[in-house]
Amino acid sequence: MSKAIGVMDSGIGGLTVAKEIMHQLPNENIVYVGDTARCPYGPRPSSEVKEYTWEMARFLYNQQIKMLVIACNTATAVVLEEIQTAFDIPVIGVISPGARSAVKYTKNDRIGILGTSGTIKSKAYETSLSHLRPSIETFPLACPKFVPLVESGEHAGSMAKKIIAETLVQLKNTNIDTLILGCTHYPLLQPIIEQYLGPSITVISSGDETAREVSAILAYRNELNARHEKKENRFYTTGSSKIFGQVARQWLQNEELNIQHVRLPRN
Amino acid sequence: MSKAIGVMDSGIGGLTVAKEIMHQLPNENIVYVGDTARCPYGPRPSSEVKEYTWEMARFLYNQQIKMLVIACNTATAVVLEEIQTAFDIPVIGVISPGARSAVKYTKNDRIGILGTSGTIKSKAYETSLSHLRPSIETFPLACPKFVPLVESGEHAGSMAKKIIAETLVQLKNTNIDTLILGCTHYPLLQPIIEQYLGPSITVISSGDETAREVSAILAYRNELNARHEKKENRFYTTGSSKIFGQVARQWLQNEELNIQHVRLPRN
Repeated sequence: MSKAIGVMDSGIGGLTVAKEIMHQLPNENIVYVGDTARCPYGPRPSSEVKEYTWEMARFLYNQQIKMLVIACNTATAVVLEEIQTAFDIPVIGVISPGARSAVKYTKNDRIGILGTSGTIKSKAYETSLSHLRPSIETFPLACPKFVPLVESGEHAGSMAKKIIAETLVQLKNTNIDTLILGCTHYPLLQPIIEQYLGPSITVISSGDETAREVSAILAYRNELNARHEKKENRFYTTGSSKIFGQVARQWLQNEELNIQHVRLPRN
Repeated sequence: MSKAIGVMDSGIGGLTVAKEIMHQLPNENIVYVGDTARCPYGPRPSSEVKEYTWEMARFLYNQQIKMLVIACNTATAVVLEEIQTAFDIPVIGVISPGARSAVKYTKNDRIGILGTSGTIKSKAYETSLSHLRPSIETFPLACPKFVPLVESGEHAGSMAKKIIAETLVQLKNTNIDTLILGCTHYPLLQPIIEQYLGPSITVISSGDETAREVSAILAYRNELNARHEKKENRFYTTGSSKIFGQVARQWLQNEELNIQHVRLPRN
């Protein structure tokens, strides 16, 4: 069997990235690990985020993957470069692809960024955006209520509409033309966010754009699978495989997922 | 000065790709060559396309570029792989990025492809699309009247509207949800094409997507310019620098372009 693409996240949010990779690259296999037992990473000190992320990275690396995707904004901000330097396979995070896509779409150089408090505090998107185009003005907004909405399965109801409206009202009068969803949970809220903002603002999902770059980089390295093999996607969680499985089956619209509990080896 | 990105085309069409690279990567310098004297490549035998494309590729390679973009669908179809194998820098064409983006956007796996007769005959997009996702159904359409429209500067008038409507009527009842503009001239017709098709069809410019992949690959190789230097874009044409200059200044909305006539060295 050909090598898989490794995807890791502090929990379930990275499943939106995995789903998009499956959509864009149906010939590829994925091995996913979510550190649900220690989720969320956002409020943790960097040293812990670093330690836990390295545990997942080594676990996936030992599965003979051909590429590693850090599908977690917090972990990307803290430890991406270190892992890129250490590994002999391509390693990408979710921040640069989102920033790159926003630079493509904006016409007035005014870009909004939604994220968890940790991601917004890290200013990782601002750094990446100004690196690409110094003239860009950013409007970051922490949305601490969004992840709980998604985790509780309330991402499509009237409560979601209310919370999204109350949060995004702060972007009024900013005149942004592009908005980055800087958290892998947020794509599940995207329809309501787009409805609230109207058609004049382009909403970018970092996760979707990351999948796009996985495709581009594997093609550049001539490592895309040339044909469709029997799918062998595997999902590991450090927490309850039952709860993880419920969410994964719903999000990925697939009842037959190979989900296992895993105890990550210490570094 | 840091190394530039090389962009080449049979003529002026590749300027749409160059423009998009300048938009997405304003810190980078570009060196462009258009083989206007021998344009169009479409009707030429493959052996000639190969010979001429190699002349441009070597000319650019000798300018110390860090990446080469073949911004011409015909040349990409004929000679991309050969140049990729021969050069020690990344080389990309316009076909795979367009195909990859279409696979991202389509929901019903029905994709239209517009191109010159040569590109449509080559089936290069079909090959690339089916490689990515075997279930995709394609609806290719040669548009021989589109390039003359653009070359004659008529890309925004009533004649353009008429010709586009007469051509695209053939896509009626195909139920495509995504359309690839498989020629670097066509982005200038994109507003009218989108207006004719309506909002239910996503229109993808191969050129825009190519620029996006230039950004992703240079980032992956850690070769993006970290800061904004004095711009040193250079444009070479094998034909009249006066005519090339008129088009280039209009398309790039820049009056101060460094444009020179060049005689390409034989291989």
